[in-house]
Amino acid sequence: MPTRYDGALRDVIDAFSSLPGIGPKGAQRIAFHLLGADEESVNNLAQSIVRLKTSVRFCQICGNVCETSPCIICVDPRRDKTVICTVQEPKDIMSVEKTGEYRGLYHVLGGAINPMANVGPSDLRIADLLNRLRGEEGRQVKEIILALNPDIEGEATATYMARLLGDTGIKITRLAYGLPVGSDLEYADEITLGRALAGRQEM
Amino acid sequence: MPTRYDGALRDVIDAFSSLPGIGPKGAQRIAFHLLGADEESVNNLAQSIVRLKTSVRFCQICGNVCETSPCIICVDPRRDKTVICTVQEPKDIMSVEKTGEYRGLYHVLGGAINPMANVGPSDLRIADLLNRLRGEEGRQVKEIILALNPDIEGEATATYMARLLGDTGIKITRLAYGLPVGSDLEYADEITLGRALAGRQEM
Repeated sequence: MPTRYDGALRDVIDAFSSLPGIGPKGAQRIAFHLLGADEESVNNLAQSIVRLKTSVRFCQICGNVCETSPCIICVDPRRDKTVICTVQEPKDIMSVEKTGEYRGLYHVLGGAINPMANVGPSDLRIADLLNRLRGEEGRQVKEIILALNPDIEGEATATYMARLLGDTGIKITRLAYGLPVGSDLEYADEITLGRALAGRQEM
Repeated sequence: MPTRYDGALRDVIDAFSSLPGIGPKGAQRIAFHLLGADEESVNNLAQSIVRLKTSVRFCQICGNVCETSPCIICVDPRRDKTVICTVQEPKDIMSVEKTGEYRGLYHVLGGAINPMANVGPSDLRIADLLNRLRGEEGRQVKEIILALNPDIEGEATATYMARLLGDTGIKITRLAYGLPVGSDLEYADEITLGRALAGRQEM
């Protein structure tokens, strides 16, 4: 016997190993779990994967994932159309929604500027945002929030966009840097603590 | 927008979350990875899952996973038919095969005795092993290695089987306990170190 699995078992282990966050051991564990699972739940899994590709698309306006385009946020009359929150990925929209603090619109860039990975401004949905601002609805926009990741790529993208949007007259803001709630000063890294100091607020 | 995903995206996240070792965040990450992946690899994944259930079965002799029953180990004329290595799960066969130190046959129990989970001897393939030993090929067996997990359930199962097989005249052995190769005495727990001392070997 070779020291690797063969046939269908190998295929399923290989397929799962190629997913993010799943190593060969995890994939093997999943494969044996599926072997022991009932037929229905296994078919559900396979079908949900196929349906994902056929029924989920991206909103033509904001780039969010949706089953109808425009997405339910873009067409919702109760959303505040004067604010657009710009995020890197569709999943970031869910994170902002979960705060319950935001009622405006979104715009998904599809990543961040990253010269090392050959991602430039033209690879992101920045031109789409500019077009959107020129449209009828877009002219109501008074504020663009840059909710990008607090890392080098997010920073670079925010700086680039702030400069690009600087002469539109729209207020450009970004998320506050500071200490995570529930954390401890002792464990804050010096850069975060420095930002928290610089951004200190009067009580 | 609800603060949960909807439709096909929710289905795929739910389906992946139910797999071992994948939490909701990991499932979300995988779902977005699949959304961005090319059609072919996504279909491959779905098909491999479906094929797993249709083409993988269990060897009627040893209980190993296989696409043909008896499995390729049981029918391999080069394997030593006088030794049977008893393991808990089919994946343990792969672990033993990878050592390159074993050329005998296997027998998969399908678990270990665990009163807390209501698993008794009759839920394991122990009767199958006894039948196998009574058969023509089985009468050649001179040694049964109990390669069970070094935990309470594995111990209990090994003790039970050693007693059960005691009067067959077959030699019953089990894997050595001791220090893992490449580890450090300092980090060995006292039970393992105690076993390593008790099982010390002359050099």
